[in-house]
Amino acid sequence: MRDSYREQLDTVVNDLVEMSRLVSSAVKRATQALLTADIQLAEQVISDDAKIDSAHNDIEQRCFSLLARQAPVAGELRTVVAALRMVAEMARMGDLSAHVAKIARLRYPEKALPTNLEGNFRRMAEVADEMVNKAGNTLHSRNVEVAHELAEIDEEMDDLRRSQFRILLSDDWTHGVEAAVDVALLGRYYERIADHAVSMGRRVVYVVTGETAGDDTWTTA
Amino acid sequence: MRDSYREQLDTVVNDLVEMSRLVSSAVKRATQALLTADIQLAEQVISDDAKIDSAHNDIEQRCFSLLARQAPVAGELRTVVAALRMVAEMARMGDLSAHVAKIARLRYPEKALPTNLEGNFRRMAEVADEMVNKAGNTLHSRNVEVAHELAEIDEEMDDLRRSQFRILLSDDWTHGVEAAVDVALLGRYYERIADHAVSMGRRVVYVVTGETAGDDTWTTA
Repeated sequence: MRDSYREQLDTVVNDLVEMSRLVSSAVKRATQALLTADIQLAEQVISDDAKIDSAHNDIEQRCFSLLARQAPVAGELRTVVAALRMVAEMARMGDLSAHVAKIARLRYPEKALPTNLEGNFRRMAEVADEMVNKAGNTLHSRNVEVAHELAEIDEEMDDLRRSQFRILLSDDWTHGVEAAVDVALLGRYYERIADHAVSMGRRVVYVVTGETAGDDTWTTA
Repeated sequence: MRDSYREQLDTVVNDLVEMSRLVSSAVKRATQALLTADIQLAEQVISDDAKIDSAHNDIEQRCFSLLARQAPVAGELRTVVAALRMVAEMARMGDLSAHVAKIARLRYPEKALPTNLEGNFRRMAEVADEMVNKAGNTLHSRNVEVAHELAEIDEEMDDLRRSQFRILLSDDWTHGVEAAVDVALLGRYYERIADHAVSMGRRVVYVVTGETAGDDTWTTA
């Protein structure tokens, strides 16, 4: 009984890693669709979001069942509760990737992004993807260092967002209001993906150490 | 033992209602700060967000302790898990209210909103506040109807957001890029507050009926 329970818990944790790969793929393809105005790819990201939602529901059901049948305590309870939270965060990251793809679709055949912001968004997407991968592995590796690293990497994301605003609000902006609104919302979506990754890292710190990192632990900016 | 456990669970559910009052107050005051460029009020909303975060942590700890010590099953397990989710959603609503207040603060002594959008945002805030209150009560009342109502009310929010975009992207827009970006982000914040309320309603449907409403149940748009 205990063995099968440990096995089920391990499977949940492994499946989190698997789910983070789906999210990473969504982030990358959404960005590609955005940068190249690729409508087929955009549509694919939007429809593939159902796979991420279904991974979410599946893992969640198994967590509920672990809670109900096995009544885990201490570290194992924390692991199950953290897993529940982390799948919700990843589902949200999937939604945000779909939002990026929807803006790409909305502006097709034009590109949503002005050329002078392409590099900024390309880098934002790389940072976001790195964070998704680290966050997805962190409960599996129980690596508290990586969890802390996520907060550091997030600082680059914040810098990128600030540069966007500088470009957006400078007197040289010639791309009009629509492009400005798109850029503001797109920047917000990537920033939120990164926030969720940071938050996932914090949950792992909690699982491993049993300690939260202060009042704002569970709350992402 | 069982009695004290029921009592603890009831206290958690009551405290959710209490926490929703804090959130409702944050939404209302942030909107007031935004509409009147009231910097003191904006600062207050931003610093009071710590109270919402602390309610979050407190309720969450009690949920963990219920899970660990009482090993609830069936409906009670669902209630605890839903409560965990709902406090996280409300903490997020608090953050979003603080984001609204931060834009008010950033533009002070100017108003962030052009006059022709004030009515739209005033209504958005009313709808959001109604939704926060309904969502906060719904686990307590276990009223599945109200949970469904939330999705309906959310349609008005979507309509209001669409009107914003129409105004924002019309040729008559004379308020420049900065105001457009503020409006786009502010609209997004209110929309997300409403999404979280809908999502809270869905969790209550799950608690009461044991059924999720499809693949996208837990995912807010």
